[in-house]
This record gives sequence, structure tokens and C-alpha cells, in this order.
Amino acid sequence: MGNTFNMQLPDKDLREKALKVRNASNEISQADDDERKNALSFMANSLIKNADRILEANNNDFEHAKENGISQSLLARLKLTRDKLYLGIEGIKKVRNLTDPIGQIQINKELSNGLILQRKTVPIGVLGVIFESRPDAVMQISSLAIRSGNGVILKGGRESNQTNISIIKALHEGLEESSLNKDSICLLTNRKDSIAMLNLEKDINLIIPRGSNELVKFIQNNTRIPVLGHADGICHLFIDNNCDIDLAVKVSLDSKIQYPAACNAIETLLIHKDVAPKFLSKAIPVFKANKVELRGDEKSGKYGIKLSASNKDWETEYLDLILSIKIVDSMFDAIAHIQRYGSRHTDGIITEDNHNASIFMNTVNSAGVFHNCSTRFADGFRYGFGAEVGISTQSLPPRGPVGLEGLVTYKYFLKGNGHIVDDFNSGKKSFTHKDL
Amino acid sequence: MGNTFNMQLPDKDLREKALKVRNASNEISQADDDERKNALSFMANSLIKNADRILEANNNDFEHAKENGISQSLLARLKLTRDKLYLGIEGIKKVRNLTDPIGQIQINKELSNGLILQRKTVPIGVLGVIFESRPDAVMQISSLAIRSGNGVILKGGRESNQTNISIIKALHEGLEESSLNKDSICLLTNRKDSIAMLNLEKDINLIIPRGSNELVKFIQNNTRIPVLGHADGICHLFIDNNCDIDLAVKVSLDSKIQYPAACNAIETLLIHKDVAPKFLSKAIPVFKANKVELRGDEKSGKYGIKLSASNKDWETEYLDLILSIKIVDSMFDAIAHIQRYGSRHTDGIITEDNHNASIFMNTVNSAGVFHNCSTRFADGFRYGFGAEVGISTQSLPPRGPVGLEGLVTYKYFLKGNGHIVDDFNSGKKSFTHKDL
Repeated sequence: MGNTFNMQLPDKDLREKALKVRNASNEISQADDDERKNALSFMANSLIKNADRILEANNNDFEHAKENGISQSLLARLKLTRDKLYLGIEGIKKVRNLTDPIGQIQINKELSNGLILQRKTVPIGVLGVIFESRPDAVMQISSLAIRSGNGVILKGGRESNQTNISIIKALHEGLEESSLNKDSICLLTNRKDSIAMLNLEKDINLIIPRGSNELVKFIQNNTRIPVLGHADGICHLFIDNNCDIDLAVKVSLDSKIQYPAACNAIETLLIHKDVAPKFLSKAIPVFKANKVELRGDEKSGKYGIKLSASNKDWETEYLDLILSIKIVDSMFDAIAHIQRYGSRHTDGIITEDNHNASIFMNTVNSAGVFHNCSTRFADGFRYGFGAEVGISTQSLPPRGPVGLEGLVTYKYFLKGNGHIVDDFNSGKKSFTHKDL
Repeated sequence: MGNTFNMQLPDKDLREKALKVRNASNEISQADDDERKNALSFMANSLIKNADRILEANNNDFEHAKENGISQSLLARLKLTRDKLYLGIEGIKKVRNLTDPIGQIQINKELSNGLILQRKTVPIGVLGVIFESRPDAVMQISSLAIRSGNGVILKGGRESNQTNISIIKALHEGLEESSLNKDSICLLTNRKDSIAMLNLEKDINLIIPRGSNELVKFIQNNTRIPVLGHADGICHLFIDNNCDIDLAVKVSLDSKIQYPAACNAIETLLIHKDVAPKFLSKAIPVFKANKVELRGDEKSGKYGIKLSASNKDWETEYLDLILSIKIVDSMFDAIAHIQRYGSRHTDGIITEDNHNASIFMNTVNSAGVFHNCSTRFADGFRYGFGAEVGISTQSLPPRGPVGLEGLVTYKYFLKGNGHIVDDFNSGKKSFTHKDL
């Protein structure tokens, strides 16, 4: 994607659209929990009413894409079956029922007599979503945005244009029945807008990319707006010397094959040298039986791994049934490897030694550090968040799987009755700093 | 500053220094509360022991800077008196006594029988601090970094080089007496390093700039590392129609003159047209008596404001005894003005109408929204945080005045005993998602 676009400033039309969403987002930020919940119900109902029209639009997109020779995997993602559509609608209902993330009081404090400070969660403002051919993303992100009181500007892939337009039309019809402003959701269909919106710093507060690593990387490199997401997911599992071999094989296999295209699947297995012969003699046949291609470093060659891994392997997210293997002299070498090649996503240790587990988990600077379980658990739904906005690999919060809380921020509300700082400097008044 | 540097990649020397800090930060992240507290005590004591040497070094810097014709305000900030030094040392002791920000359990949840998820606060890793001629910043930031378990790389202004070196030497001597690795703190003295460190994405997790708006802006525009800070502080006060005039005058005055060079001082007063005659007839003489230059829009001219404000005034942070004034037709016009020209720092309303106050506070998208009190309260110490790492004007957390919590992040710790995702997909096991 990086080369097909040029840097593009937002034109007047885009600025006006963004301003409309911004203004609508001011309104929706005042809406109470029930109003936002009801809006989601109306949105879901409207999608049901418009299901045939949406599926027809998707069929047109699909046929058109097929004619244009789009890849099988893209076609599969583009296809919206009735089942997928209803699953998306079910998703909206689930988001509707999540606890309100807005208005939570995080700090409630008397600074001085009559001077009260509150820190409360508030919507972020306007979300900018850029996604590739996955029309279900429109439903999911729109409902998350409205639930959390945000406006949202969406830009989808060209392939799914008709589908996206028909879904947004249904969502707008739903919003019109609700008390919320339908301008809270805006779809951009102009190709140049996807780059231009990266420059809408004043009007978009958070960018959420949904698509390939290349898309995410390109966006991260071309905007100053914060980006919620991750490019690579290079996850590791370290098999410690003192471990339960059967458990190690079972967890390694699940971490690789349960869904190899997921970001939380492992790409590299790091194995303590002392346990390597025993572990590999059990693991190699199991991986082979499950069609996993193993690529090993020099040392692992003598335990029966035929293909050799190069340095490039350590930094590759295969997203496929391929696993690289490295024999390490110690846990600290494993940690050093992870720090050098990892992407701060999720890394695990298999060990019966709790002290080692603790050192590993404290030292590895990834969003998720796991002990004796599959890296595939790194997921907002499995964590019980009820929704997943994305998985972030940055160091600062929100990191890891991000639920609705990733779509809110906070604000300080200070109320006084004529309080001035000079009175505190002169000693006339003093701070109490009392939690309320 | 923007024009005097070229983009500079980190050289081998800088990379090695950064790696040393990174490794030391891994160690310090394991240190417990007492170890970090003790380290701060040793650091404070060592500064006391080395006070004479530090003051002498500062004297050399000062004389040298004076010879080079550095501005008075820079000279004032450069000068480290014995009082200022001891105030800094007191500051370290206060930071020592703050509640440990590390290891706080934010989520503690059973995902399934035997599969336990915890989200705990952890240090961010390595902080990069770039500051101008304020040698006290070295003590403050170093102590905040160590208290929160982070490593820190500091780059100060050339003018204060000798002072910085002697302070760091004392801090290192203190750390050597403690159980912590002295490499946790590193001072860069090479001019080119301040730009090069902006490219140390793998080794620096957060940049904290301390200096002019230009410095902050330059840094924000030239790094992909998150920056904790703000460039402009363009704060507003809106005087609503239904207000207590005396209170309005008193709070406006404090918000402007209590410390005009502060980022939380107001630059613009927005006045409801219906209250303008009454308010200004009282406020103009008071501002005049306090040597505040008033610049008004056209409408305010007829109420006795002689200098006129241009559009440029609305976007200027004067940092001086100058105040721009605009008469607005409604509160919504005031809010629109703030959204257009404000910097999302702190904005207040003066009103007796609680409904209006609520709309204003909910709609204005700034880190601080104040009612009937001075904007000058927007400060980590006044908020009772015990320390202020910086004030952030970004939309996402941390925003507003940031205490120690701005120097920590969190991580997900998941512990199982062989749990794999396949068992949950096949229905063999199920999620409990039970808070512990």
C-alpha cells in the first residue's frame, strides 16, 4: 500500500464531513447510557430490516471483485453470508449490553474547602477507522464507537464499497429512529480520503486500522494521530529446562496451529539446550503430523530439524504453518532473543520452576507474559472484555487486547466558588487533598 | 531550535550507552519498593555531600554563559543557588515517600479453572529526557524515574553541562551505595545526541521534553516515540451572562497574573455580550492597575478596550501580562472559539448557572474543564499528586497534569497449567471470567 498513495491534504469536502462528525460527537458525548444503548438496538434492528439489500450489495461487490481477479483470501474476507451478517448484528447487541465506559469517576477529591476535583472517563471524540475488505468491521466499529459516545469516520476498501454503503445506510436509518445524531457515523468512499484523513489531526483523535501488517505500518508511519493497533505479532514460547514435556508439546502446538494466521500465534520456539533432545524428540513428530514446517538454528539440526532458519526467520511473522526453532544456553539468552526480535505482543514460558517463571514474566517487556498456557489466549474476548477494539503493542496504555476502555479517555473537572491560586500562595488558604 | 539540527541517526557509542541503560532498567524493574526508596535516600545524601562541588560547577557554567551573552531569563534558570539545590534535594525525599506506583493489580480474574489473568502496573522501561538550561530538572526527573523503576537517559543544554555532569556524578555515587545499578541513569553530553536519541525507538519508551514550546514542538514533530508534554498552553475563561461579577473579575485576574509565564495562565477572555458592559467596567481598571495589556475584538472596543486583537492573538500564548478579549453572542460561540483556537489544556467558565456549567464542561474537549475557579489550579501538586512529570494536552491518557502514574504502564500476566485454546473452541472447557 505504501507506494500507491501520495501524501494528500484533506480537501474542503473532507474537512466539512469531518466537522459534521466532530459536531455530532459533541452531541453524542452528552447522551446518557440509555440513549446510547437504545441507539444500538435501533441500529441492529435496521440491519435486520435491510439484510436482503445488504447481502445483494455484497454479492455485487463479490462478483465484481472476482472478475477483477482478487486473491482467494481477500474474496473470503469480502464475502458476507447471511450467517456472518447476523453474527455481526448479534455483536452489536452484545456491545449494547456492555457496562457503560463513560462517566466513571476515577478521582474524587477535595483540594480545599469548596474546591472539588473529579476525574471522569469521557469519550475520546472522533475515531478514524481504515479497514480493508472486511465489511463486518463497519458494524463492529460503528457500534463500539456509538456505545462509547464517540463519532466515527470510516474508510473501507474499494472492493467492498457497495456493501459498506448499504450497511452505513442501514445504520443511519437506525440512528434516525434514535435520539442520536446520525452524523455521528460517516463513511468515506473517495479513494484519496484514506490518506487525507491521516492529516485530520484536529478532527480525528484516534486512528484504528483494520487490515494487513503493511496497512498498519504505513498508517503508523504517516500520521501524528495516535494509532491503536499493531503491525507485527512475533510471539515466542520459551521451553525451560525444568518443564513438563507433554504440557510443553501440547501448548506449543496450540500456540502455533490453533489459528496460525492470528497475531497471537507463535513464530519462534526457544528451547533450553538441556531439554532440547527430549522435547524435540516428542515435538517433531507431533508438528509433522500437523503439517507444521520447522526451521531450526544450527544446534537444532542435530535433533532432526532439517530446514535451517536464517536471521530473517527470527523477525518474520509467518502467519502460516511455519515455526522457527532456536536452542538457547539459558533463560537469559531466550529473554535477550525476545527483546531483540519480538514485537512486544505476547511471549510465554513453559516451566515448572516458579522462580524462573517470575523472572521471565517480569523481565520480558511485552503486553502479555504467559506461563504454561497458549499464547492464543491473548484476545479481548478470552480476557472477558466482551469486545476487542484491537491489540496494541506499544509500551504505553492501552496495550495488549483493548476493550471498550480503549475508546474512552478522561478529563479533570474542577469546581470552586471563586477559588484563586494567590490565596494559597499567600497562605490565606491551604490544600486539604482529601479523598471523597 | 528546529533549524540548527539535522536528522541524526544514533551512532555506535550512543547505541551502546542506550543498551546499558536498557539492561539496567531490566534490573531496576525487578527492585522492590524499599530498594527503590533507599536508592533515592542515597541519591539525596550524595547530593548533600557533593553540594559544594555542584555549586562550583554551576558557577563556572554561569560565568561562561554570561561571557557568551546568554539572555537574562536563561541565566536565571541556569543559576543554581544553594537554596535551589536544597529544594531539589527536598524534592527527591518527597518523591521517595510517594506511594509505589509499581505492582498495582488492576485486573485479577479467573478466565477458567486454573487460568488466572492479572493486569499489573510495571515501569515503562527507559525514559528519554531532553531539557534546556534548568539543572534542577536532572535531580527531579532522575528521582521520578528511579522511584517508578525506569531507566533514564538525560540530555541537557550545553550551557549547564558542567553542572549536569557534577549532579549526575553525585547521583551515580548515591546509586553505587544502593542495591541498584548505577547505569540506570545516563547523561549525554554530546550535542548531536539530542537529535539522535529521538530515533532510539527500540530503547527509549517515552520522551519527556522540558523547555520552550519550540523545543517541545520540534521533538513532537521529529520522533515516533511517545512524547509526554505539551507545546502551547492557550487557556480560556468564559464569562457567562449569569455570573457573579466580582468573582469573575477576581478569578480572571488570578488566571492571568498569578504567574503569567505558566502554561495554565489564560491568554483569552471570552465574554457573553449581555454581561460585557458590566463586567468590563469593573475588570478594565483592575487589569490596568495590575499592568495587564488588554487587546480586544471590535465589539469590546466600545467598552473601553483601546488595543485591537487580530486573529493571530487568538492563537498566541503570550506567556506575559497580555490578555486578549472577545465578546461572544452565546456560550456555544465561546465553546466553538475554544475548540478552534484552544490547545486542549485547561478552560474555564464563570457562571451561576449550573446547567450551563455542565454543558460547557462536558462539551469542551480539554484536559481540564473548570467552573468558578482559576485555571492556575491545573497543576500536579495542586491536584495533590505529590509530583508532576509534565502536563499533557493529548486526547488520550495520560492527559492533564501527570504524576508518577505517567511513568508506569501495565502488562497482562496469564498463568495456567497447560491450558490451550483448542479445548475452549471444541467445548471441552469453558470460560468463567470470574473476578477474584
